[in-house]
Amino acid sequence: MKISILDTTLRDGTQGEAVSFTVEDKLAIAQKLDELGIDYIEGGWPGSNPRDKEFFARARELKLKHARLTAFGSTRFAKNPIDRDPNVRALLEAGTPTISVFGKTWDLHTQRALGITEEENLVLISETVQRLKDHGKEVIFDAEHFFDGYRSNPAFALRALEAAQKAGADILCLCDTNGGTLTSQLAEIVAEVRKRFDGVLGIHCHNDSDVAVANSIAAVEAGVTHVQGCFNGYGERCGNANLCSVIANLELKLNHTTIGRENLANLTSTARFIAELANLPLRNDQPYVGHSAFAHKGGVHVSAVLKDSATYEHIPPELVGNRQRVLLSDLSGRANILFKLKQHGIADRLSEDARRELLERIKHLEFLGYELEAAEGTFELLVREALNPGLHFFELVSFDVTTKMTGAKSSRTTASVTIKTKDGIHSATASGHGPVNALDLCLRQCLSPIYPSIADVRLTDYKVRVLEPRKGTAAKVRVLIEWSDHRRSWATVGVSDNVIEASWRAMVDAIRLELMRLVEKDESIEKAVEDYCWGV
Amino acid sequence: MKISILDTTLRDGTQGEAVSFTVEDKLAIAQKLDELGIDYIEGGWPGSNPRDKEFFARARELKLKHARLTAFGSTRFAKNPIDRDPNVRALLEAGTPTISVFGKTWDLHTQRALGITEEENLVLISETVQRLKDHGKEVIFDAEHFFDGYRSNPAFALRALEAAQKAGADILCLCDTNGGTLTSQLAEIVAEVRKRFDGVLGIHCHNDSDVAVANSIAAVEAGVTHVQGCFNGYGERCGNANLCSVIANLELKLNHTTIGRENLANLTSTARFIAELANLPLRNDQPYVGHSAFAHKGGVHVSAVLKDSATYEHIPPELVGNRQRVLLSDLSGRANILFKLKQHGIADRLSEDARRELLERIKHLEFLGYELEAAEGTFELLVREALNPGLHFFELVSFDVTTKMTGAKSSRTTASVTIKTKDGIHSATASGHGPVNALDLCLRQCLSPIYPSIADVRLTDYKVRVLEPRKGTAAKVRVLIEWSDHRRSWATVGVSDNVIEASWRAMVDAIRLELMRLVEKDESIEKAVEDYCWGV
Repeated sequence: MKISILDTTLRDGTQGEAVSFTVEDKLAIAQKLDELGIDYIEGGWPGSNPRDKEFFARARELKLKHARLTAFGSTRFAKNPIDRDPNVRALLEAGTPTISVFGKTWDLHTQRALGITEEENLVLISETVQRLKDHGKEVIFDAEHFFDGYRSNPAFALRALEAAQKAGADILCLCDTNGGTLTSQLAEIVAEVRKRFDGVLGIHCHNDSDVAVANSIAAVEAGVTHVQGCFNGYGERCGNANLCSVIANLELKLNHTTIGRENLANLTSTARFIAELANLPLRNDQPYVGHSAFAHKGGVHVSAVLKDSATYEHIPPELVGNRQRVLLSDLSGRANILFKLKQHGIADRLSEDARRELLERIKHLEFLGYELEAAEGTFELLVREALNPGLHFFELVSFDVTTKMTGAKSSRTTASVTIKTKDGIHSATASGHGPVNALDLCLRQCLSPIYPSIADVRLTDYKVRVLEPRKGTAAKVRVLIEWSDHRRSWATVGVSDNVIEASWRAMVDAIRLELMRLVEKDESIEKAVEDYCWGV
Repeated sequence: MKISILDTTLRDGTQGEAVSFTVEDKLAIAQKLDELGIDYIEGGWPGSNPRDKEFFARARELKLKHARLTAFGSTRFAKNPIDRDPNVRALLEAGTPTISVFGKTWDLHTQRALGITEEENLVLISETVQRLKDHGKEVIFDAEHFFDGYRSNPAFALRALEAAQKAGADILCLCDTNGGTLTSQLAEIVAEVRKRFDGVLGIHCHNDSDVAVANSIAAVEAGVTHVQGCFNGYGERCGNANLCSVIANLELKLNHTTIGRENLANLTSTARFIAELANLPLRNDQPYVGHSAFAHKGGVHVSAVLKDSATYEHIPPELVGNRQRVLLSDLSGRANILFKLKQHGIADRLSEDARRELLERIKHLEFLGYELEAAEGTFELLVREALNPGLHFFELVSFDVTTKMTGAKSSRTTASVTIKTKDGIHSATASGHGPVNALDLCLRQCLSPIYPSIADVRLTDYKVRVLEPRKGTAAKVRVLIEWSDHRRSWATVGVSDNVIEASWRAMVDAIRLELMRLVEKDESIEKAVEDYCWGV
């Protein structure tokens, strides 16, 4: 059966504590969700803030091939007549084909939050829905706190739904706004509503009881055909139902149609894209789309999975665009590096000694605190260096970098770098925004006459983590840097008790890797590495 | 009804990609779980690795007042007679009162992974359980892949359970090992097993379909009285059922007894303690125990919650030891600072101008990219500075810090710092492990003769994040440092395009705050700040 999906990442998702998007981000995400085959994209609350208003103004330029853009807002305020309510006006001005409007269905809220009677509340609902229908809109009525309302006063809650339906609402969406309802009770209440109302019912769950995905699925089993949620489970407090999981469960476990099987293979990349724009790491353990979702660490699991992946994988990861991983840090994983290098025809090019040395280097770096799983750039460099012993392009002679700060003025940083290349000694001096920037400028000055292509390599993220917190400011740190050359991105890692040295090492690895790739354009190396790390 | 809880954070939890504990960590966590009232603590697989073996040897020193320590392992290997199976021997040698032993209940696994017949598998199960019972152990039979097995061949799966029960297993625990089963189907299968078997049934769910908590709850509703899971949902791939959510749901939503209402108030602190030892951030959006679980950002929600917190909170957060937060970055949150300062009697001590200035400073810092929510130390300092204008203890005259690196040798860093205090000018020079350490040493040299107490303040964590990735190595960075003086911990934040300047600012804030606290030991200030930030 076709289940329509409303994504509210751009509206309810931004209520999450750490989630914030620019208007450009929102436009890019809307485009991506449309490509994925999402049915409704709830873009914001135009009456609540100027950014959302601007989004809808600019969204007219979007070329959506499938999705219906949806504006969100409340029923009119009790004090405003319907034709002079600024919120309802903003909803209509958003110019979307569909409008979600939320109304109260919990007596506690009408009494405590709004201070109005039930009758007044029913009038707010009907007048608002009616008004939007008069303007030819498709209307989704979001029954706020429906499940709390039903528990408190079922007749009150049902009358609110009825008012919305009579006024012409196209979808009655039952919201577990506080996320407090457990699955069996939610399913019972949905079944009860299903018996009493024709037409499309929807579900909107929050994850405060850690059961939002299960609740959304149970609601579908009880007759709902419209599901709302957010990518990566973003949203207020504990988030909304995670659409990645909802969509995959509906498609793969219950054989419903949401975005369709073909689009499903883009689920993981879409989840990552949205996490990228939210500037939040995608949770490794996120079901279906996380980096660890099909990662095997235990020895028993690894050996069984190599025989038959169904033994420890509930679905083939390719169906959602994800991949199986066997973890490097595990001993069996290390043996597996060779297996994979073999598969890609690389191991044969290494002597027995070179293989052993490669494994030893990996082991040693891990012992020092390197995390190669997260730094496929550094790992790829190790493999390429094993294949091309002696090819280093340049060596450090020396660097120094000084930061000075006087009084309340901003600091100044100056660096000098001397390196040795095949052409001889090169030196450069530069001022920078900080030590990493100053060293980066010097290194590029030295190298760019010989290797102009390194101009394309840019830092895109920089993270520092303390490895031995007990040592205070003398602790060892791990620096993880993400790079991009506009065609692809990769991460390198450096470990040292000096944050500058660790950053330098990660920086040098990134530049060396780029140069290595130019010398040997062998994609099988990248493929073998990607099979393991697939980091960024 | 009493539902017994088995925590497998120390065993299945460590199969999670990023989770790793030392033996000391494991002992400390076992102690903490016992204090919380957990019934069974599954400590490891003594037959699989030396660390787990050592844990059980040292666990004999633990004084557990309630929990039963549990060793985990497999049924005997097909090739070993029962009295010479090293895994079964290791289980007995672990010396625990309870043993979990897992056996195959899915025909795919006996065929593909083990390559044995059904009859052989039944013998492995009965002989192993029998052997453990002969040694007086309480035995939990973990029916691995039970739900996949039941779907594939119900008779086969049920015969395996029967073999375990006949051999004396005390608890039959049904495992959704691959985490692929949806809630309604899981509940049906559990109900079917409940009809056929007497005695205690257990449930063990993985989160690959994002429904592990709901599945555990549904299993209890279908007659299970023993639930297994991990704190914070750690575990292989997408993790195990999150015990924080399972326990809270069972206690607060279904009125069952697990750890008891009184212990429930320690749920949040236990979750944080375990995350701390795992060296993983506790997920902000984690249900019940996360930092954002009762955080309100949307304007509508904030105003309603201030009237009646039940309007947007599914439970009173105090029941699980968590707290309500109204987010600072929100405009209404900013107004709320004053409200809270008033509540704690601090606002009255500020002039109208001082209040306005404080709000302006906060607004300006947030605009620059400071995140005061995560840095309650910096926030507390702002409040204290507003209360004590002009009291700065020291001012920077100048610093410089140089890192030099030659060839393949390690880098060397030297810093000089000159500051002005009430006594005059103080200078110091020091070498350090890196620039932050070198500056720290200089600052302490300058200040410790005047303020010896700052020796207690130590860095415990250091994080760097890039704010404007598009600017490459010239991007602005935010440095967040956590500090401890052995009595409490707090975080400070610094933002700059220079990582050293940002670190310096965070460091100076931490030292100034310590000095401020010594001058004015007014706990109401800390309380007011904690009400907002409650960061570390």
